[in-house]
Amino acid sequence: MEKTLTQSFQVTYEYPVIFTEGIFESENNLLASLIHPVKEHIPPKVIFIIDSGVHQEHPELISKIECYSVYHTSRINMPINPIVIQGGEAIKNDIKYLMSILELIDEQRIDRHAYLIAIGGGALLDAVGFAATIAHRGIKHIRIPTTVLSQNDSGVGVKNSFNAFNKKNFIGTFSPPEAVINDTTFLRTLTDRDWLAGVSEAIKVALIKDANFFDFIEMHIKDIQFRNEEAMGKLIFRCAELHVNHIGNSGDPFERGSSRPLDFGHWAAHKLEQLTNYSLLHGEAVAVGIALDVTYAYLSGMLPVKSWHRVLNLIHSSGLKLYHPAMRHAINGRFEVLDGLEEFREHLGGVLTVMMLKDIGEGVEVHHIKESLMKKAIDLLASLSPADNRTSLARTTVGIEHGFTRTSNFPEDDHHG
Amino acid sequence: MEKTLTQSFQVTYEYPVIFTEGIFESENNLLASLIHPVKEHIPPKVIFIIDSGVHQEHPELISKIECYSVYHTSRINMPINPIVIQGGEAIKNDIKYLMSILELIDEQRIDRHAYLIAIGGGALLDAVGFAATIAHRGIKHIRIPTTVLSQNDSGVGVKNSFNAFNKKNFIGTFSPPEAVINDTTFLRTLTDRDWLAGVSEAIKVALIKDANFFDFIEMHIKDIQFRNEEAMGKLIFRCAELHVNHIGNSGDPFERGSSRPLDFGHWAAHKLEQLTNYSLLHGEAVAVGIALDVTYAYLSGMLPVKSWHRVLNLIHSSGLKLYHPAMRHAINGRFEVLDGLEEFREHLGGVLTVMMLKDIGEGVEVHHIKESLMKKAIDLLASLSPADNRTSLARTTVGIEHGFTRTSNFPEDDHHG
Ligand SMILES: NC(=O)c1ccc[n+]([C@@H]2O[C@H](COP(=O)([O-])OP(=O)(O)OC[C@H]3O[C@@H](n4cnc5c(N)ncnc54)[C@H](O)[C@@H]3O)[C@@H](O)[C@H]2O)c1
Ligand SMILES: NC(=O)c1ccc[n+]([C@@H]2O[C@H](COP(=O)([O-])OP(=O)(O)OC[C@H]3O[C@@H](n4cnc5c(N)ncnc54)[C@H](O)[C@@H]3O)[C@@H](O)[C@H]2O)c1
Ligand SMILES: [Zn+2]
Ligand SMILES: [Zn+2]
Repeated sequence: MEKTLTQSFQVTYEYPVIFTEGIFESENNLLASLIHPVKEHIPPKVIFIIDSGVHQEHPELISKIECYSVYHTSRINMPINPIVIQGGEAIKNDIKYLMSILELIDEQRIDRHAYLIAIGGGALLDAVGFAATIAHRGIKHIRIPTTVLSQNDSGVGVKNSFNAFNKKNFIGTFSPPEAVINDTTFLRTLTDRDWLAGVSEAIKVALIKDANFFDFIEMHIKDIQFRNEEAMGKLIFRCAELHVNHIGNSGDPFERGSSRPLDFGHWAAHKLEQLTNYSLLHGEAVAVGIALDVTYAYLSGMLPVKSWHRVLNLIHSSGLKLYHPAMRHAINGRFEVLDGLEEFREHLGGVLTVMMLKDIGEGVEVHHIKESLMKKAIDLLASLSPADNRTSLARTTVGIEHGFTRTSNFPEDDHHG
Repeated sequence: MEKTLTQSFQVTYEYPVIFTEGIFESENNLLASLIHPVKEHIPPKVIFIIDSGVHQEHPELISKIECYSVYHTSRINMPINPIVIQGGEAIKNDIKYLMSILELIDEQRIDRHAYLIAIGGGALLDAVGFAATIAHRGIKHIRIPTTVLSQNDSGVGVKNSFNAFNKKNFIGTFSPPEAVINDTTFLRTLTDRDWLAGVSEAIKVALIKDANFFDFIEMHIKDIQFRNEEAMGKLIFRCAELHVNHIGNSGDPFERGSSRPLDFGHWAAHKLEQLTNYSLLHGEAVAVGIALDVTYAYLSGMLPVKSWHRVLNLIHSSGLKLYHPAMRHAINGRFEVLDGLEEFREHLGGVLTVMMLKDIGEGVEVHHIKESLMKKAIDLLASLSPADNRTSLARTTVGIEHGFTRTSNFPEDDHHG
């Protein structure tokens, strides 16, 4: 005799993503207003964790936060001075950092009504967010992203993670923050590399969702590259908005299906980061990954040649690279980067689903990648790479097109979903 | 100039809790029918993890599962034989077990469309569930609880966890399984202690939610104690049903508020488990915790004496204990168990919220516990304990009632929310 109970419920998630400046100016109420009292007149504990890279460039930040919490003492109970923790990918690679954040939560008796506020790049936000999500099965957590990439992409979403077994983001959770605050003033101290790296995520989301946004980036790419804050501010806002809308409206915010459109260009990017031992920044790897996938899309006849040129030209003129030698690291004659396809599939599971491009602003999912054609795309990008300027780019392209036409029968080494 | 995007979405969670027998008989389609193909005709990988305590009593289980997966090969792709892992609280206390499960997931390339099926007691289910929830940000996971407690309580809910920093369940997540299958045949091999321990969760939920269910348990307590499977089956079903309904209908399945009604009797129980170094089983500790809180409720005038007697008598005649000497472990004259109140508050955060009893079937939340009165309740239970039978229970009680009346002014050492 079999009996069944059915459990069924819904959970609502909601959080603001705020774009502002000077959040730690004492008179600025914004952050304080986001901290909800435990009960009337009892401010919750609030602990700040600062990225070491941010601390180095903003040594005054700690005392600013101390002043801020004194000024807003009716809303913020800061039991311990802001803690500085290793920023960058290093924090996600060593479990000792995860343990030290959990230890801090334990020692300071941070509970589910207390707040952990993380200030830093995407890597630190991922690691602190992961700790916050598992401690006491989830404590409150506010993100203050300080890089272009974290303000326009990683910091505004619902994911956090940690690397393990030599795999990026092997562990993690889906767990939305209480709030995200993007303060543009932090961006001034970024290196040129980190400033630029975040631009590729904007190109990515423009390519799959918004041709007008692509036009905007194209039009302003030199301003963006040379650190014009207004242009970058617009890029960040629109990019964040497209990400937020996608997550909220996709019907699959926690990625239960096999599709992950926002990861256009990312299967190769993730693998390249690993192959270069993270010397390539995520955003730099994404630029290469986009270049590769648009080249594949062009070679397979999906993407018009003109659009292909526009994308490569935009990446190139932004100062980002279209190619990295690690793309042709080979084991027994096989490019290792191609393993990225299977690893990408495996992470989501199910059928291989890769976002490709029909035209600018028009993503399309495919479940099948021809490995030989992808190899061709890699070789083509490699051949374009030494020249590294527009004129020769166009020239070389034509040459390769001929080559491609001559050898259009590929062996059956396809990647299927 | 400040701008805000608001992210907002809902996620639906749904899973069946199935009561059955003989799930691994080859012709039984139930489990196979719960495994969804990756795509048509492609069975997903399925990995089984078995509690060492279950394995010891059911050595044939591994080969049964192997046969089952061969028989159902069109739905189940079992890449590796079932793995036996340490059962009992030990698995939650040592991170090496967590790492070994994650390693298994990595090595076997288990992805988000593959299944991890855990067979065992509440502790193993908590640990495997936690690993499943963080690997790849969540892989599919089916629970097959094998103890009374995990079938009627821990296994049917949405929580999983791991102990850390010497705190029970310090890390964990809310993350519903794909399905729960309660197969009563497993229960036959439980020790008498484990058989009984789960009964206290049924008494608990009856007390706060369902007076008729309390009557049922009272009426059948000797059948239940002496391993009548039909009576136990009914107890488990109703208890699981009350838990499932509470989680689904409370409006707070992931415990964002400060309330946790299902944890009646648990603030002391959790602390006692820790104080006894887990030599006291969870369910045994819950029995003591219930006895303590009903005694407190009675002493504070909230619970009628007759109902108080009924509860103590039921626990007592079930074979569970009302008291454990660790309740009076003192440091500087203060009972350590009382720290359990603050630890309980801290875990949820916010205002102290403890479930108390107005009458059988009628829970009521309080935000304030008088420590001196709680101490009194402990002393009262201690004084009842050596006698350990009904007649003297009643007799001693009266004596203590007088004592209580004489000293009704307590120092102000209250626990506030
Ligand atoms: N969770 C997600 O959805 C998601 C999405 C995309 C990327 N990511 C992750 O984000 C990470 C990359 O983030 P990132 O690009 O921000 O790089 P990052 O976090 O590695 O930061 C780059 C460097 O800049 C420093 N830094 C940060 N802010 C600074 C500032 N204002 N001034 C000076 N230096 C500063 C950091 O210390 C670090 O050395 C990767 O780990 C990636 O996997 C996560
Ligand atoms: N997640 C939740 O919501 C929740 C709720 C309550 C309790 N819990 C947790 O559940 C755990 C207690 O679970 P439990 O009471 O099932 O104990 P348990 O998991 O510790 O198992 C008790 C013992 O029985 C053995 N065993 C299991 N099944 C058996 C069988 N069929 N035959 C013979 N031996 C068997 C185990 O190996 C173990 O030694 C605690 O860690 C507690 O924190 C979790
Ligand atoms: Zn990215
Ligand atoms: Zn319990």
